[in-house]
Amino acid sequence: MSEPKIIDGKAFAAGLRDRIATEVAKLKEENGITPGLAVVLVGEDPASQVYVRSKGKQTVEAGMQSFEYKMPETTSQEELLAKVEELNNDPAVNGILVQLPLPKQIDEQAVLAAIDPAKDVDGFHTTNVGLLGTGSDNGLVPCTPLGCIMLLRDHFDGNLSGKKAVVIGRSNIVGKPMFNLLLKESCTVTVAHSRTQDLPGEVRQADIVVAAVGRPEMVKGDWLKDGAVVIDVGINRIDKPEGGTRLVGDVDFASACERASAITPVPGGVGPMTIAVLLANTVTAACQQNGIAVPKL
Amino acid sequence: MSEPKIIDGKAFAAGLRDRIATEVAKLKEENGITPGLAVVLVGEDPASQVYVRSKGKQTVEAGMQSFEYKMPETTSQEELLAKVEELNNDPAVNGILVQLPLPKQIDEQAVLAAIDPAKDVDGFHTTNVGLLGTGSDNGLVPCTPLGCIMLLRDHFDGNLSGKKAVVIGRSNIVGKPMFNLLLKESCTVTVAHSRTQDLPGEVRQADIVVAAVGRPEMVKGDWLKDGAVVIDVGINRIDKPEGGTRLVGDVDFASACERASAITPVPGGVGPMTIAVLLANTVTAACQQNGIAVPKL
Repeated sequence: MSEPKIIDGKAFAAGLRDRIATEVAKLKEENGITPGLAVVLVGEDPASQVYVRSKGKQTVEAGMQSFEYKMPETTSQEELLAKVEELNNDPAVNGILVQLPLPKQIDEQAVLAAIDPAKDVDGFHTTNVGLLGTGSDNGLVPCTPLGCIMLLRDHFDGNLSGKKAVVIGRSNIVGKPMFNLLLKESCTVTVAHSRTQDLPGEVRQADIVVAAVGRPEMVKGDWLKDGAVVIDVGINRIDKPEGGTRLVGDVDFASACERASAITPVPGGVGPMTIAVLLANTVTAACQQNGIAVPKL
Repeated sequence: MSEPKIIDGKAFAAGLRDRIATEVAKLKEENGITPGLAVVLVGEDPASQVYVRSKGKQTVEAGMQSFEYKMPETTSQEELLAKVEELNNDPAVNGILVQLPLPKQIDEQAVLAAIDPAKDVDGFHTTNVGLLGTGSDNGLVPCTPLGCIMLLRDHFDGNLSGKKAVVIGRSNIVGKPMFNLLLKESCTVTVAHSRTQDLPGEVRQADIVVAAVGRPEMVKGDWLKDGAVVIDVGINRIDKPEGGTRLVGDVDFASACERASAITPVPGGVGPMTIAVLLANTVTAACQQNGIAVPKL
């Protein structure tokens, strides 16, 4: 095989953010609407703080309004639910994201269930899961799998019909919505996971492999069919032999490059897509809430 | 291969109805609750009339209350929605089923969406689709796929973990919920459909084949792996060469018997399960609504 195409998620995300900014400008001019995203952070988790800051910055750069709410580690469930209710009722807020994980005194499921599904830009609400599960276009779709399908649609010029796809991992956040998105594109889809008996055998059949298991470099190059397209959702930090650490995906990138026709790197593949898709979901939510046709982004 | 085991859905459904009747008697005695199922039939479709009559009869035989509402073919959407709202608010009604298809002046989706998810014994409401899609046990699951998984759990003594399952068909009523149920049992699951490129090749890998496409005898015996377990959801009426008609499934039964280790016949396989599971769902709904532990049926 020749060298695979490296699917540049960073560049794609930058282009997506540009298209979002254009749509936001249009929404302002034609409809007098400035989409607004509210992010709620409870506690002091350093990784969450970095992530929330990045979301706020990119939201503003796209021309949207960013609302950040920082609540102390000791926040009670009632206090957080009251904040969610306030944001549900705030017309300036089109999207609500409660940063996970939450402190242990708070029931995450109860909080996610309290978010107005129309503002649930994370796509985790039961109503949005159900809409995706029935193939509806009226819901909001989780950011990471939606980012993966955007990269795949771009790579295949929009035609995934009949491709054989294998999703490794069955989480509610990535694996299951990924299944639904690939099925909607008319792929033949297999979901494999920790109980799968012959994982290399499953992967070997796939035109498209989506790895979302959270195990560093688990998927080996010799598991792949020649010419497979590989989407690596994993972001794992491992020790370097010479000291220090580095980020790797769920796919062994070096060996995968010998077989794949295209592959997302880690970092720089799926990772940068997630926040860009969050912004896209906020635009989608703003349009849906105002009865405006959702732009194709 | 020796002759396959014929999975007797009629006998299993009879046993299920007995277990339901026992639980209903217990609910009356211990909790003073008689589960009630309301079936709404709009119009004069003869097949629907037969089906509704059969549901009502089996509901009463299980010791539950049956409420039948027949509305004229000319019923408006507003009138049907008003009936649904009345049943949503009626504490004697634990389950609501609006018989499909509906006359063309009525938007089916709008009617299904109006049913209280807690009373949606068909499991078609977005909220129930979302609950099944996230692996929750708190929802109501569509009757036909739930019946299929009951037959499979019985056949495999409850242990489906790691089995390779192929679902043929991707409808919201059977294929997609079947995927979710098999995944919840820790099968490796593939969903194949009309765009699948090598359907025989997919089927040949499967320990479990669920056929739900509505094409008479489409799945041939030589597509099967030796020892496969075959669940045939199809019910198709075809002409007999000598005149008259007969019912066949989506699987070519005669040739499938040469390879399968177990198979559901048509009729007498999945078919009889559907109403029995509807009764089970009504018991489940009555328990959930009253905060009573749902019995294992």
